[in-house]
Amino acid sequence: MAFSERITRLKSSLIREILAAAQRPEVMSFAGGLPAEPMLPKVDWSEMPASVGQYGMSEGEPALREKIAAEARALGVPCDASQVLIVSGSQQTLDLASKLFIDPGTEILVEAPTYLAALQSFQLFGANCLSVPQEADGPQLDALRQRLERSKPAFAYFIPTFQNPSAVRYSEAKREAVAALLDEFGVTLIEDEPYRELVFDAGSATPIVSRLKRASWIYTGTVSKTLLPGLRVGYLIASPDLFPHLLRLKQCADLHTNRIGQWQALQWLGSEQYSQHLQALRDFYRVRRDAMQTALERHFGELADWQVPQGGLFFWLTLRQPLDTRTLLDAALAQNVAFMPGEPFFAEPEGNHGHLRLNFSHVAPERLDEGLGRLAEVVRQGQSTQ
Amino acid sequence: MAFSERITRLKSSLIREILAAAQRPEVMSFAGGLPAEPMLPKVDWSEMPASVGQYGMSEGEPALREKIAAEARALGVPCDASQVLIVSGSQQTLDLASKLFIDPGTEILVEAPTYLAALQSFQLFGANCLSVPQEADGPQLDALRQRLERSKPAFAYFIPTFQNPSAVRYSEAKREAVAALLDEFGVTLIEDEPYRELVFDAGSATPIVSRLKRASWIYTGTVSKTLLPGLRVGYLIASPDLFPHLLRLKQCADLHTNRIGQWQALQWLGSEQYSQHLQALRDFYRVRRDAMQTALERHFGELADWQVPQGGLFFWLTLRQPLDTRTLLDAALAQNVAFMPGEPFFAEPEGNHGHLRLNFSHVAPERLDEGLGRLAEVVRQGQSTQ
Repeated sequence: MAFSERITRLKSSLIREILAAAQRPEVMSFAGGLPAEPMLPKVDWSEMPASVGQYGMSEGEPALREKIAAEARALGVPCDASQVLIVSGSQQTLDLASKLFIDPGTEILVEAPTYLAALQSFQLFGANCLSVPQEADGPQLDALRQRLERSKPAFAYFIPTFQNPSAVRYSEAKREAVAALLDEFGVTLIEDEPYRELVFDAGSATPIVSRLKRASWIYTGTVSKTLLPGLRVGYLIASPDLFPHLLRLKQCADLHTNRIGQWQALQWLGSEQYSQHLQALRDFYRVRRDAMQTALERHFGELADWQVPQGGLFFWLTLRQPLDTRTLLDAALAQNVAFMPGEPFFAEPEGNHGHLRLNFSHVAPERLDEGLGRLAEVVRQGQSTQ
Repeated sequence: MAFSERITRLKSSLIREILAAAQRPEVMSFAGGLPAEPMLPKVDWSEMPASVGQYGMSEGEPALREKIAAEARALGVPCDASQVLIVSGSQQTLDLASKLFIDPGTEILVEAPTYLAALQSFQLFGANCLSVPQEADGPQLDALRQRLERSKPAFAYFIPTFQNPSAVRYSEAKREAVAALLDEFGVTLIEDEPYRELVFDAGSATPIVSRLKRASWIYTGTVSKTLLPGLRVGYLIASPDLFPHLLRLKQCADLHTNRIGQWQALQWLGSEQYSQHLQALRDFYRVRRDAMQTALERHFGELADWQVPQGGLFFWLTLRQPLDTRTLLDAALAQNVAFMPGEPFFAEPEGNHGHLRLNFSHVAPERLDEGLGRLAEVVRQGQSTQ
C-alpha cells in the first residue's frame, strides 16, 4: 500500500493508549484532562428551531460569531465578527493552521514543554519544531530572541494562560516582551487559550495578540473546558490577512461546524447563567486543586518540585532524580494508577526526561492519598532500579 | 507572509460564491443541493443523557458504529463495527483520505464529471487527478482499463449511486466490471454514497466495495441528505489495513465527531420512524423530479439532452451547442435565476464545456416554468453572442 509521505510521521498517540488502559473502573486516573462529570451543566434543547438542522455557513452562525467577537474585544483583542471562524473544537484550529503554514521541513516555534496534540498535528505536516524553554512566568526571553535571530519560523505557537501541561501563566512583563519580539521579527503568533476561564487565583491574562502591532495572529478558544466538550465547538479569531485562507481550509475540511452545538453554545456565552456556572466551576476545581496540593506535598514533597497551578486542570511535576517517565507507566497501571509521562510534550523527548503531568479534576479528594501514595512508590521503585 | 505550498492550490469555491449571490429572496436557485426545508424532520432531544456532553472516543459512539455496520452488512458490505469511523460529515472523509494518500503529484483516479468538493480537497493536497469519462450506466470500461494499465493511482474515487453532479447510477454489469478491474490492478476504491437512500426508481445499487476480493477500500455515507445536515454526522467504513491510519488522522483533525449529533442519528437509524421518513422523502422528491422533468422538456427540449435521474437531487444537462457555462452566470443572476455551471466538476474544466447542474429539490413546482424559462433564454442569448 502506497501511503503519503506524511503517514511515516503519523504516530500512535501515547495518551490514547493510556486513557484506554485507564478505562478499567479500578484505575485511579491522573492521566486525562476531562471536565469533572458532576460539573457538566444541564442543557435545554427544547427551544432549538428546526432550521438549525439545515446546512450552515462555513464561517459559523452569525450570532455566535458576533458574541465571540464582543467577548474577545472585552479582553482587549481588536477584532470584529468577520474575523471569527467557528471550528469543530480547538484541535481543528491546529489542523487548519498546519495546512496553512506547514510544508515538510517548515520551521515553527513552540514552548518546551507544549501541548502534545499540537505537536502531533504540526509534525504530521512535517514541521521542524524549534523550542524555547518555559520558565515559571513564561518563555526564556534570551532563548526566544536567539531563536528568532537564527531562524524565521512560519509561526510561534504559545499557550500563555495555564498552559497544558506546565500550568504556566505568562507574567505581564513576558506577555509584553513576547509581543514585542514577534513584532520585531515579523513572526505570526498562534495563541491557544482553552483554559482562560478556569482561573483560581487572580493574575495577568490579557492576550498577547492584543499587544501585537505588526505581526499576524490567530487567537483560539473553545467551550470544551467550560461548557460541554461533546458539542465540539471551538473558535479562532484571525488577523484579516489570514482569515480568508483559514475559511477556505475549513470549508474543505468539513464544510461547517455542527449547528446544534453552535446553537447551544450561543444560549450560554455572555449569559448570567454562564457566569454563575463558571463561578461554580472555579470553586469546584479550586477545592480539588487544593486537595491535590496537600496530598502531593505529603507524597511527592521529597521526590519532585512543582508550582501550584493558578488555573487549568494540571500539576506539572519535575522529578529531582530524573528518569524516562514513560518507563514507569506499566508499573503504575499494574498498581491501578494512571498518569501522563512528560516526554511526549517536548519536541525533543529524549532530552527532557523526568516530568509527570497530573490531572487534579478527575480523582475524588478522598482517594488522592491512596492514588498518589501508590504513584510515589512506583517512582521510587523506578529510580532505585535505574 | 510565507504560506505552505498547498495554499497556492487553495481555490475560491465557485459554488460558495453562487450560493451567496443566490441568498437574495427573489432569486430562484437551482444551484445548491440542500434538503428541502419542509422535509427536515422534527427531532426530539428530551431523552439525551447529560453524559453525551463529555469528551468521546475518536472512533465514534459504539452503539452508532454497531448500527451502521449492521446496515452496511445488510447492503452486502463485509464489515464489523471496528471498521466504522464516525466523521464530521462526509467532507471529512475526503480530507482524511487526502491526508492518507496524497503527496504533491500523487496520481488518483476520478470520474469525469465528479463531485467538485472532492476535487477541491484532492487538489489542495496536490493530487494529479486522472479522469475516466462517465457514461449513462457508469464509467467507460475501456478508458478505465487504459488508465490502470498506464498509471498506478493511489486510489479511485467513484460515486456509483446517483452521482453528484451527473445523477448516473452504475449498472450491475459496470459495478462488477469496476470491482474486477480494481482487484486486477490492486487499486484502492473510495466509494462515496451520500444519495443511496434518495431513490425514486428501482435498480442496481449493491456497493462496489462488497464485490472486491483483493483491493483495499473506503465506503462513505452520511445522514446529511436524509436526516439533518446541521448535525454534521457522516461515517466511513474501511478495510482493516486502512482503518488505523484513518482513525489517527481523525484524532489529529478534531479529536472526535460531536456526540450530540451522533446521539440524534442513533435515535433514527434503523427505526420504523426513519423508514417512514425516508419513504416520505422519496415521495416528496419524486414529485419534484417529475415536475422538473416536465418543465425541462418544455424549456430545454431543443437546447439540451439529459437523463431522468433515478435518485439524488440533480439533473445534469448537456447543451447541444456547447459553451463555457460559467460565462452565463452573471446573466442568469441578473434574471434572478441561479444554476451550477458544469466545468468545476471536471479535473480539466477547459475540455468539458456545456453542462449545467440543476437541483430539483429547492424551487417549488409552481415556479419552475418561470425559472427555467428565464434560464433557457439566458442560454439562448449566450449561444447567439458566442
